Amino acid sequence: MAASIFLSSSLLKPPMETLTLISLPFRRNLSSLRRPSPLRRTPNPNFPYSRRIQASAHPFPVAGSEEALMGFITGKRRATEVAHSVWKSIIQKGDTVIDATCGNGHDTLALLKLVGDESGRGCVYGMDIQKSALESTSSLLEISVDSSEKKMVKLFSLCHSKMEDVVPRDTLVRLVAFNLGYLPGGDKAVITRSPTTLLALEASSRILIAGGLISLVVYVGHPGGRDELETIQSFAASLPMESWISCKFEVLNRPACPVLIFLYRR
Amino acid sequence: MAASIFLSSSLLKPPMETLTLISLPFRRNLSSLRRPSPLRRTPNPNFPYSRRIQASAHPFPVAGSEEALMGFITGKRRATEVAHSVWKSIIQKGDTVIDATCGNGHDTLALLKLVGDESGRGCVYGMDIQKSALESTSSLLEISVDSSEKKMVKLFSLCHSKMEDVVPRDTLVRLVAFNLGYLPGGDKAVITRSPTTLLALEASSRILIAGGLISLVVYVGHPGGRDELETIQSFAASLPMESWISCKFEVLNRPACPVLIFLYRR
Repeated sequence: MAASIFLSSSLLKPPMETLTLISLPFRRNLSSLRRPSPLRRTPNPNFPYSRRIQASAHPFPVAGSEEALMGFITGKRRATEVAHSVWKSIIQKGDTVIDATCGNGHDTLALLKLVGDESGRGCVYGMDIQKSALESTSSLLEISVDSSEKKMVKLFSLCHSKMEDVVPRDTLVRLVAFNLGYLPGGDKAVITRSPTTLLALEASSRILIAGGLISLVVYVGHPGGRDELETIQSFAASLPMESWISCKFEVLNRPACPVLIFLYRR
Repeated sequence: MAASIFLSSSLLKPPMETLTLISLPFRRNLSSLRRPSPLRRTPNPNFPYSRRIQASAHPFPVAGSEEALMGFITGKRRATEVAHSVWKSIIQKGDTVIDATCGNGHDTLALLKLVGDESGRGCVYGMDIQKSALESTSSLLEISVDSSEKKMVKLFSLCHSKMEDVVPRDTLVRLVAFNLGYLPGGDKAVITRSPTTLLALEASSRILIAGGLISLVVYVGHPGGRDELETIQSFAASLPMESWISCKFEVLNRPACPVLIFLYRR
């Protein structure tokens, strides 16, 4: 039986023409999730970390921050795992969060598990400019969560620079997650780019509540990746120190390793 | 009653002339420890972190890594606290470690508490080019630890680039800690400098065991600080990825904040 993720029309803000309502049948065929990506999903000699988050019925074994921090330092944890661990410390049940780059849905699912509670509170706005990404995300959610949890996810075929078009004004957003670069297993020519990433960061900074976090995993191994990192760093450095802490974690002797950036609103 | 910290002659290696045996009376007068430093010990508008490690009879309330990681991201923990927390995860009782920059002794004391056990195993080699730093370190140890613990500390008036002159060959060194810049409360004209810091890093990398860590807190707010950071980063980036992980943690929107660098030997 096909299931769908709906965008409640009451949540839409003008301009309506910038939105696309996603109503995707959940697919049992997960071949798109299993396609290897040289950047993120196959063993990488530049980043031979042993533990990886896999698509499964229980795909979210988030490490404690301690394990994640030491794992990052000792090369046993990936940047994405550190990010998930940090989210766990920031997000509270019932929160509203945004996955600005759904990709294959791993972050969307991780966020859903953190915000959802039995009362049905909590909301994940997920967006991606590629429909294939949203299909993969829907498929992953289909096999991973129940129907009550699925209702907490709202997916949009949308550039993340336009997130304010779909997140209702005055929504208290606790976290905005970015996983930049290209879609693993997808078209490598379609990548996130500095101008729209910058607009998305500016939008995120406007809608984030105090105590909230903008989390970025920045891949730098593909053409354009370093430029995008420079743009993000400039934005991060420009945030007023009275109200923001902008941190960067990177591996210096593995140039292709993703860089972690956390922008915490005090 | 005055106490002393002795260097066991059996541990000395040639060339002896490069060594200075430190035998300092422990002082009750801690005024030198309490002198303010604009860089590290007074409230800094660029780094308004609330919790600071103070000299006291129990000066080592090391945060868990979880608290340290999130504290760094949220601006509630200083770089030194994150470093101490990481040391706690690396060091085992009975280990031999090196404080390459004793300063006022806070790191020496922290390291001693981590390596020392009841059987008297564990050893901290502490060094500083300034005798006033070693006097402060001795004073801090005097009020903070008992005589059996003091025996585990060996202090040297020595440039850290010459650490291999005092650490016996074949010693299994678990951790080398650097806290760079100038002595808080001391002569700001006396700073650690890139050439000798680089030599000290090269020496550290030769004597560190697998599973060991070189930990650096790099202050960049004083003249020469950025140059020293560049030197360290180049060294860190040059370490072979098969046997080293070189990580850097920094705050992007507080340019004077110290930068953390961890070099983990796999």
